[in-house]
Amino acid sequence: MKTDPGRHFEDFRIGETIRHATPRTISAGDTALYTALYGSRFAVQSAESFAGAIGYPAAPADDLLVFHVVFGKSVPDISLNAVANLGYADGRFLAPVYPGDTLSATSEVIGLKENSNRQTGVVYVRTRGLNQEGRPVLEYVRWVMVRKGRESARPHREEVPPLPDAVEPASLGSACPAIDIRAWDNALAGAPHRFGDYAPGERIDHLDGVTVEEAEHQLATRLYQNTAKVHFDGHAASGTRFGRRLIYGGHVISLARALSFNGLANAFHVAAINGGRHVAPLFAGDTVYAWSEILAAADLPGRADIGALRIRTIATKNQPCASFPGRMAGGYDAGVILDFDYWVLIPR
Amino acid sequence: MKTDPGRHFEDFRIGETIRHATPRTISAGDTALYTALYGSRFAVQSAESFAGAIGYPAAPADDLLVFHVVFGKSVPDISLNAVANLGYADGRFLAPVYPGDTLSATSEVIGLKENSNRQTGVVYVRTRGLNQEGRPVLEYVRWVMVRKGRESARPHREEVPPLPDAVEPASLGSACPAIDIRAWDNALAGAPHRFGDYAPGERIDHLDGVTVEEAEHQLATRLYQNTAKVHFDGHAASGTRFGRRLIYGGHVISLARALSFNGLANAFHVAAINGGRHVAPLFAGDTVYAWSEILAAADLPGRADIGALRIRTIATKNQPCASFPGRMAGGYDAGVILDFDYWVLIPR
Amino acid sequence: MKTDPGRHFEDFRIGETIRHATPRTISAGDTALYTALYGSRFAVQSAESFAGAIGYPAAPADDLLVFHVVFGKSVPDISLNAVANLGYADGRFLAPVYPGDTLSATSEVIGLKENSNRQTGVVYVRTRGLNQEGRPVLEYVRWVMVRKGRESARPHREEVPPLPDAVEPASLGSACPAIDIRAWDNALAGAPHRFGDYAPGERIDHLDGVTVEEAEHQLATRLYQNTAKVHFDGHAASGTRFGRRLIYGGHVISLARALSFNGLANAFHVAAINGGRHVAPLFAGDTVYAWSEILAAADLPGRADIGALRIRTIATKNQPCASFPGRMAGGYDAGVILDFDYWVLIPR
Repeated sequence: MKTDPGRHFEDFRIGETIRHATPRTISAGDTALYTALYGSRFAVQSAESFAGAIGYPAAPADDLLVFHVVFGKSVPDISLNAVANLGYADGRFLAPVYPGDTLSATSEVIGLKENSNRQTGVVYVRTRGLNQEGRPVLEYVRWVMVRKGRESARPHREEVPPLPDAVEPASLGSACPAIDIRAWDNALAGAPHRFGDYAPGERIDHLDGVTVEEAEHQLATRLYQNTAKVHFDGHAASGTRFGRRLIYGGHVISLARALSFNGLANAFHVAAINGGRHVAPLFAGDTVYAWSEILAAADLPGRADIGALRIRTIATKNQPCASFPGRMAGGYDAGVILDFDYWVLIPR
Repeated sequence: MKTDPGRHFEDFRIGETIRHATPRTISAGDTALYTALYGSRFAVQSAESFAGAIGYPAAPADDLLVFHVVFGKSVPDISLNAVANLGYADGRFLAPVYPGDTLSATSEVIGLKENSNRQTGVVYVRTRGLNQEGRPVLEYVRWVMVRKGRESARPHREEVPPLPDAVEPASLGSACPAIDIRAWDNALAGAPHRFGDYAPGERIDHLDGVTVEEAEHQLATRLYQNTAKVHFDGHAASGTRFGRRLIYGGHVISLARALSFNGLANAFHVAAINGGRHVAPLFAGDTVYAWSEILAAADLPGRADIGALRIRTIATKNQPCASFPGRMAGGYDAGVILDFDYWVLIPR
Repeated sequence: MKTDPGRHFEDFRIGETIRHATPRTISAGDTALYTALYGSRFAVQSAESFAGAIGYPAAPADDLLVFHVVFGKSVPDISLNAVANLGYADGRFLAPVYPGDTLSATSEVIGLKENSNRQTGVVYVRTRGLNQEGRPVLEYVRWVMVRKGRESARPHREEVPPLPDAVEPASLGSACPAIDIRAWDNALAGAPHRFGDYAPGERIDHLDGVTVEEAEHQLATRLYQNTAKVHFDGHAASGTRFGRRLIYGGHVISLARALSFNGLANAFHVAAINGGRHVAPLFAGDTVYAWSEILAAADLPGRADIGALRIRTIATKNQPCASFPGRMAGGYDAGVILDFDYWVLIPR
C-alpha cells in the first residue's frame, strides 16, 4: 500500500529511532504568520533592531513555532492513530532557530505500556528537532495513547521511562546567547519588570481573551505540517462524540503564551517545558483566557545577564481568569483547558 | 500589578511623549499576508521588477500596512480603554518602508477635553512611526474617546489642538523617490489613467464587494500587534450592545483602498491622510463596497514625475455603491461605514 | 469610465495577445502562506537543505502557487464576466520559480465559439507566465464561457483550436534541474516509493479529508490577486442560484495535490496539466477528499534521474474516496468536484 495509515501501538519497539519526514525551512513568512495567528509581542522575536542590540545575531523564531514544527513532523509516525496526547516532559530548547534554518526531527521510542482494556497503549517518545547542521535545537518527551491495530497484539517489551518533574535550571539557557542587559530597553519591551521583580507564588491574570476560528487553527496546524485528521476533517468529525473538529493542543499553548505577554513582557524566551496537560478540548468559537503562577525563580550558573522563572500557565475557555481557576482536589475547575509548566528566561 | 490595564483619561498629560512597546521588523511575510488579507494589486508594492524600473530601490511595503503597524503600537498606551476612535488628521507618510526595516512608535499628547458627562474625555495624540535609523516614516494625529478611571478625576489642563482640514500638497511626496515615468508600464499597472485624466468632482464606483470573516480581521489585527479587546474577545462581546466582535477600523480602510484599485490603478502611493471617520461598525459576514470622489488635483513643487489627487473614499456595508451613498444633510446614508479623505500620488 | 467592467465575448479577437496587469514577486511569505493554506509536505519545496542536496539552487515555489498567480493575473482581462471555467489543456511548467522571482502574464486568444443561445460564447486562451527575465515559466490553454455584452454582437471570426489530449512526455522536465537521486532521502521525503513502484491502473485513496472555510479560500484567492467576484461578494451571492460564495477551482486543485502526498510523497514536481474539469462547485463548510489513478508511466529522453507519471486525481466533497468515486456512463458519481489529469516527475 502506498498510503500511510499510521502506526498502531504494537508497531512501536522500545529503543528504535524514527526519522521523520519533510524537513522544513523556517522563513520570514512563517514568523509573520505566527504573529498573525497569535499576536505575539515579545520584542526579541519581533524586531531585528531589538534582538541585535542585546546580542542576538538576528531575531530568532518564536520558541513555540519551533516546537510546533518539530511536533508536526512527528505526527504521521507517532500519533496518527492517537486517542489522546497525554503529556510532555523534559523539553529543552537547545539552540536558537533563525529564519533560513531548516528543521528536521527524529523520535526515539523510550517507553511502552499497554492499557488494561487491551485496545490501546501508551507510547513514550523522545523527539529531537535538528537544524540543517544536525545540531539539536529542541528535545522533549511526550506520551500519547495509541490504538492497537489488533487487540491480540502484545508489545515486545513494556517499560515506563523515568521522567523528571521539571528540567534542572542549571541546564537552561543554551538557546540564548549572552544578553547585553544594558541595551535592554524596557519601554520597547513593554514593561519594567525584570527577574528580581517576580516572586514564587505570585499570580498574574493576563486579562485578555481571544476567540478562535476554524480557519485560524487550521492555518496554524497546516503551517506546522501537522496532519492529525481530527483537526481538519469536519465531515468525519460530525460522527464523533464531539461532533466537530478538535483544535490542536499546541495552538492553545501558543495562544496562552501570547496572552501572557500582558504581565510577562520581558520573559522573552521559553527555555524548557517541564510538563503540560490538555485538560479539555477547545473548539472554534470558544474564547481563550489565561493566567500564570510563578512557581520558582532560579539563577543560571555563569549567567549574570538572565535568570529563569518557572511558570505554570492555566488557559481556560469562555471563563475569564480573575478568580484564577485551576486544579482543585476533585479535578480541574470548569473551563480549564490547559495546565502548562515551563521555564522562561528574563533579563536581570 | 504586572499587567497593564491601560491608561484612563486622567492619566494623560498634555506635552508628554509616550514611547510605545514592541518594535517590529517588516518582512516579506508581512507583505504577503497583506496581499492575502486585502488582495491589493498596486504594481509598485507587488513587484520588485516594476518598482525597480521606475526608480525605487526595492518594492516598498504598502503604506497602510505601515500605518496599521504604527497604529497598533499605540493601542496599549493610548486606546486600550477607548470608547471610540473619533478621527484622524494631518497624517503624512514621510519615508518609504521596505521589508527589513524595523518600525517603532511614539505618541505625543497634544490635547485633552473632558466630556460633559464627566465619564469620558477626548485624548488627542500625534503618533510618529520611526524606522531603525530613527527616521520618521509616518506621522498622524488621532483623537479618541477614553474612559475615566474615577469620575471625580480632572485633567491637569484641557486644550483642543488646532488641526488642518487637509495636508498641504506642497508637503507631500517625501516618501516617494523620483519616478521614471517613461518606465511606467500602464498595461502592467492595470490602467491607462494618469494624473491628468482625473478631475475634481469625478466619482468612481469601485464595483467589487468583499465579505469579511472573523478569522480575516483577527489575523490582520494581530499582524499589526493591535491588542484592542473589542476585536478579539467574542465571549466578552456577547454581553455588549453589539453582541459581537467589532472589526478594527483600519481593516475597513485597507479593504476600501484595495477595492479602489478598480478605477485608481495608477494611484500607487498614499501620501497623506487628511481625515477619516468610522461612521458605523463593521461585523463579520458583512460585505464591503466602496466608491471615491476626486476632491482636488495638485501639482507638487519640483516634481514633474507625479501629481497628487485628493480623494474621498466612502465604504459601505451590504450596499453596493452605484448610487454613491454618502453624507446627507441629516447624516450619512444607510450602509456607510467609512468616510476617508486622503492624498494619493499618481504618475503624470 | 475608469473602472474595468471586464470583457464580454464579443470583445475578444482571435490572434490578439493581452498583457495582464500586476506583476508579482514571489516571496518566502507566499510560500509560507501556501503551506498554511494547504499543508503541502513535498520535501523539495519545503526545505532548502533537501532541495540543495539533490541539485536545486534553492527550494522552488510550489508549481500550483505559480499556476494560481499566473491564472489570477488573467482573470480581470479574460474571465471577469465568465459564467464558467470549462477546461484546461496543454499546460506545461517550463522553468522553476524561486522566491525573489517576479511573475507576469500574457494571454493569446486562440479560439472563439458562440453558444447557440446567443447569450454566451466560449473563449480559448493560451496564457503564459513569464519571470523577470522574460523567460516563460508556465504555459497553458484554458477555455471559459463568457457572457456577451449585447445579444446581437457577433464574433469577428470563430474557431475552435485543436488541443492535445495530453502533453507529450518528451516535452516534460524543463522546469526540473538534474536530480542527484543518490542524495534523495526517502525517509525525509516521506515514502520509499519511486518511479518504478507505480504501475498504470494503480489506484490510491489519499485517505485524509479537509474542511474548507470562507476565510481560507478568500485568503488564498486574494494571495493570487484573483479578482473574480463570485469568490468574495457574499452579499451579491445571496441572490444567486447557489446563494453563497463559490470557491476558486484552483483552491480545490491545490487541496487535492496536498492530500495526494499520502501515497505520492516522492512525486515532487507537477510538470504538466493535461486537462481538468471542475465537475461541481465547492462551498465553505464542505470537506474535500481525493484519490488518484496512475494513467501512465513514461521515461523522459536523456533523464536517468527521473520519470514521469500521468495521474488522474479525483476530488470529492463530503464523500470519502475508499470506493474511488469517479466518472460513470451517465456522468460523475455524487460528490465528485474535480477531475484533474496531469504529469508529475518522480525520482527513479
